[in-house]
Amino acid sequence: MSSSNLLDKMIEALQVMPGIGPVSATRIAYYLLDRKRTEGLLMTKAVDEALSNISLCPICRNYTDVENEPCQLCSNARRKEKHSICVVETPSDVMAIEASASYQGNYFVLHGHLSPLDGIGPHELGLEYLKDRLSQERIEEVIIATSHTVEGDVTASYIASMVKKFDIRVSRIATGVPLGGELGSVDGNTLALSLNYRRDM
Amino acid sequence: MSSSNLLDKMIEALQVMPGIGPVSATRIAYYLLDRKRTEGLLMTKAVDEALSNISLCPICRNYTDVENEPCQLCSNARRKEKHSICVVETPSDVMAIEASASYQGNYFVLHGHLSPLDGIGPHELGLEYLKDRLSQERIEEVIIATSHTVEGDVTASYIASMVKKFDIRVSRIATGVPLGGELGSVDGNTLALSLNYRRDM
Repeated sequence: MSSSNLLDKMIEALQVMPGIGPVSATRIAYYLLDRKRTEGLLMTKAVDEALSNISLCPICRNYTDVENEPCQLCSNARRKEKHSICVVETPSDVMAIEASASYQGNYFVLHGHLSPLDGIGPHELGLEYLKDRLSQERIEEVIIATSHTVEGDVTASYIASMVKKFDIRVSRIATGVPLGGELGSVDGNTLALSLNYRRDM
Repeated sequence: MSSSNLLDKMIEALQVMPGIGPVSATRIAYYLLDRKRTEGLLMTKAVDEALSNISLCPICRNYTDVENEPCQLCSNARRKEKHSICVVETPSDVMAIEASASYQGNYFVLHGHLSPLDGIGPHELGLEYLKDRLSQERIEEVIIATSHTVEGDVTASYIASMVKKFDIRVSRIATGVPLGGELGSVDGNTLALSLNYRRDM
């Protein structure tokens, strides 16, 4: 307990953030109080605005600022020209792919994966919206970038069979040894898949 | 860049906190957006209230909730009975001593140490308020708990000579080998002081 109730409440509240325990929360609280009150207040304002106003893009279901309006990526006309949709599990996957600067088309964010035991079916992943896009837009390829877990694989298979009905090419991002990875430090399953999926040179 | 301006601003703003870089800030932002919007909003409210309202206790200069009112520690009558003041550099030092449950008296927080080159003199540390307490309250001992650095030592000497004029006992917390510390892992200066300050058994 410190000398101030407000300070105790602040330290407790900061612990809602992942990776922030009592020690870091205390350090953050004293740092902001001692030296960065103005910046700290601007921070709470920015977080408040983001948490209150960010909604899902009606096209790709990624995060967007204005309700019922397409996000920055979907409203970029140049991206539409690529006629491809990359399907990912989370908004942070979109950010990771964008950071790699290796993809220029559009996205569709599932916000999870199929998991019947948890009550997560095609409807919860918004797959009817993906269907709408496949029938209404001119899409030439759907790239599935779900993670390589049991649930990710099941989700990928489900979406692949859905896309094939529209006679559209479906692909899945490659599995294999990471760039710069030493073979000794790669797990056996990945190595097996990497051998299986070998390419001719 | 993500798909949302508000999200980008949130990620940048979160980095005002110490130890939070771009990667942690992104992780925190997505976590709050995906799963803890309500808790995140309560967090910003608590931080906002603390940063806007916490001021310094007029008696000990530690953090307090209500302006110009004594803090929880100073308004605790039982602590006054001990007739001692522990002088520390920062509010987090008070918290550390309180957590050790080894001290029952009152405090005085300097919010720094003497550093003439940085323009920090006795006035900046509020030492006139400490003087007022020494002349007005019944104080039997002043315990100096500034850190064992050059600046901490200078500050301690200055305060000690100030207190002695009031004919009040001055002490400084002990220096030595930490509890459970192996001699091999303790620095040479600490070890030398520990030998120097040895106690009869």
